[in-house]
Amino acid sequence: SIPLGVLPLCRWLPAWGRAPQEPPSLLQLPSLQLTPCRAFSNNKILVELNESSGIATMKLKSPPVNSLSLDFLTEFCISLEKLENDRACRGVILTSAVPRIFSSGLDITEMCGKSTEHYAEFWRAVQEMWLRLYGSNMVTVAIINGSSPAGGCLLALSCDYRIMVENPKFSIGLNEAQLGIVAPFWFKDTFVNAVGHRVAERSLQLGSLHPAPEAQKIGLVDELVPEEKLQEKAVAVMAQWLALPDHARQLTKSMMRKAVLDRLVAHREEDIQNFISFISKESIQKSLRMYMEMLKKKKS
Amino acid sequence: SIPLGVLPLCRWLPAWGRAPQEPPSLLQLPSLQLTPCRAFSNNKILVELNESSGIATMKLKSPPVNSLSLDFLTEFCISLEKLENDRACRGVILTSAVPRIFSSGLDITEMCGKSTEHYAEFWRAVQEMWLRLYGSNMVTVAIINGSSPAGGCLLALSCDYRIMVENPKFSIGLNEAQLGIVAPFWFKDTFVNAVGHRVAERSLQLGSLHPAPEAQKIGLVDELVPEEKLQEKAVAVMAQWLALPDHARQLTKSMMRKAVLDRLVAHREEDIQNFISFISKESIQKSLRMYMEMLKKKKS
Amino acid sequence: SIPLGVLPLCRWLPAWGRAPQEPPSLLQLPSLQLTPCRAFSNNKILVELNESSGIATMKLKSPPVNSLSLDFLTEFCISLEKLENDRACRGVILTSAVPRIFSSGLDITEMCGKSTEHYAEFWRAVQEMWLRLYGSNMVTVAIINGSSPAGGCLLALSCDYRIMVENPKFSIGLNEAQLGIVAPFWFKDTFVNAVGHRVAERSLQLGSLHPAPEAQKIGLVDELVPEEKLQEKAVAVMAQWLALPDHARQLTKSMMRKAVLDRLVAHREEDIQNFISFISKESIQKSLRMYMEMLKKKKS
Repeated sequence: SIPLGVLPLCRWLPAWGRAPQEPPSLLQLPSLQLTPCRAFSNNKILVELNESSGIATMKLKSPPVNSLSLDFLTEFCISLEKLENDRACRGVILTSAVPRIFSSGLDITEMCGKSTEHYAEFWRAVQEMWLRLYGSNMVTVAIINGSSPAGGCLLALSCDYRIMVENPKFSIGLNEAQLGIVAPFWFKDTFVNAVGHRVAERSLQLGSLHPAPEAQKIGLVDELVPEEKLQEKAVAVMAQWLALPDHARQLTKSMMRKAVLDRLVAHREEDIQNFISFISKESIQKSLRMYMEMLKKKKS
Repeated sequence: SIPLGVLPLCRWLPAWGRAPQEPPSLLQLPSLQLTPCRAFSNNKILVELNESSGIATMKLKSPPVNSLSLDFLTEFCISLEKLENDRACRGVILTSAVPRIFSSGLDITEMCGKSTEHYAEFWRAVQEMWLRLYGSNMVTVAIINGSSPAGGCLLALSCDYRIMVENPKFSIGLNEAQLGIVAPFWFKDTFVNAVGHRVAERSLQLGSLHPAPEAQKIGLVDELVPEEKLQEKAVAVMAQWLALPDHARQLTKSMMRKAVLDRLVAHREEDIQNFISFISKESIQKSLRMYMEMLKKKKS
Repeated sequence: SIPLGVLPLCRWLPAWGRAPQEPPSLLQLPSLQLTPCRAFSNNKILVELNESSGIATMKLKSPPVNSLSLDFLTEFCISLEKLENDRACRGVILTSAVPRIFSSGLDITEMCGKSTEHYAEFWRAVQEMWLRLYGSNMVTVAIINGSSPAGGCLLALSCDYRIMVENPKFSIGLNEAQLGIVAPFWFKDTFVNAVGHRVAERSLQLGSLHPAPEAQKIGLVDELVPEEKLQEKAVAVMAQWLALPDHARQLTKSMMRKAVLDRLVAHREEDIQNFISFISKESIQKSLRMYMEMLKKKKS
């Protein structure tokens, strides 16, 4: 297991921006003694790689709601990086081990009452997660087996294909506006790429959480499947995508996503500063504190 | 009431381009003694503000067809500006007081046999109308209770939500090509944002006027409602949009529309010169004169 | 008839990039003695112009599969150019004289085991075909009366309207990824303009060939029609498009397509170099050779 958070994520994970045909290599970094690893579990994500199929599963298991904390994001990036560099791995299925929740999105406790340095580190980790997942060379399939608001929705949107459990009780969407905050431009870009401008404009302004059937209708998820068929369907989808030659598929994926990825890469520091100055506002801090209070009351 | 047309619109209305969180203030302009006004009517638009709900209604009442003349546009911008600066107002419903017509679009008499200066002033007012409405901080809902060709369609497209009366006799579309003219690039951008590139490409080239059911199918309007339910539906939609925190909703709206708004702001003078040189062509003047003759004959 | 391939296509065909209102004129080029021609046939394309309707038909007749060889492309550009400059011609119907195939796309023999100079000349001809067809001032309607993979799909996508025979055995799509190659960015741009980003992203990565009904569902073709009604429907569509004033329709078309056309014009040489370096790779050459072997075996 890797000591998380010892170094700022961005320092020892190689910068995103390489061509898809040149996968980055952690092995080039002498300070990290990573053994090529076939199956590993850290605290918050269970990774299993089936070497015969070339398909790995990343199971988010950070109860109660798989919120994207700094630790979670760091572990996520490390796990993804390992798989990206593992020649035995060609595809990743992303799913949740927590009942009824895929991921609840960014961990609000990371955004409340912390230092400027902490906000910067946290935001850089959120960016890193998206840059790596949306730009991954592997085939990425999300099994959305529960609700998936805000950052959880982004996680799903960053995959190549989205299968959601056929249950109208579960919903998905970029509902940031409901919390009085604004989805960053690259959340928006990813959303527009999936559902088009008009649907995104309306959904983002209303902070909509779309029940599964609606999510499929607007193209936010690709398919609805009964709970018991999720795994089977994901494997079938994966087989379809892995039937393509990796190189051609990767270059095609890169061509489709490059403009939007490049935009964050070009404005990354600015985006961090924007986040810090926004989140540091007393009015926003107050909103978030109230929201957390509400969540606590709801629980008890 | 305000003396219309005394000053060129663009000089005393503050330039568009401010951040959404800093609404412009007419009060900063010492020469204009505007009293904060709760309900007002000028010649061509009836404005009513319900202070308890925060919802204003702008009723277009410029018979016979609510055409967008220079006077109409000036009054429109002033009315919208007042509401924008009125803290009691958070949303605007745009509708027509003229039977069977929402708005017939730009007033052709303003484009025919006039001076270059007049064309420039007129076109700047058309731009201003769009910049203010498409970029408004308020929630804007169009009740399209009649046909809405060309500039009338733009008016509707510039709102956040479009409800059209469920009557296949009424149609809507950017039909400029039918008249031998070309929709400006920012009409096109607004249209593409609503219906996507392919639908826009076909509809603009054919100058299509879409009957209400088709307009809904292609996403040009969001909902069809029987005539007697229009008001009720608009209030329900408004309530849904006003449930969101203003600040987050406004920033989100700005994020979605900024690229397209900025494009006109950056090319505004060029766009005016294009309009002048296009409209001044003898062939275009002839087309417009013939079109007006046809309209006159139709009437009598 | 014109001696094909004597001069590199790009030298004597005037460069694309003119405003739509100024059609290029071969007559300005003294070395080419083209007589204004009303009906002509070369080797691979049969062109018939009905002067009373102003509609020309270009029938692709290069058996067995209408593949886009250098000769074919050269003839295609010359034929289109002639029609473009013929005042009697306002619209072109593009269809196949070969049973069951519209066009099978780029001729692989042009990309296999040839010189760098040949690759450059071939690729420039592919670009030229697209620049001229996608940017044509005429109304262009594709009757897709057979399967249409890869470059054949691009041919159809470059028209204004696509009618496909209602037969699920025929399929269409940019399936380059299946062959281990990548659709160029301007294939992708044209595709995205027709079907939107998400559908394009998935279809391109999977190298999907969509059966006719699916092609219509995703917006890749506009209409499905029984074989015996294809011609009749094409004429009806053409009549609808030709009812518009040419000038307004042409400027509108240009406005919709200019960004994407300009992008290739700006990166044309770079795109050729990319093609050459990609196609010259031993791994790609090997894939293509294997693919051709497979086709040969299939035939025998």
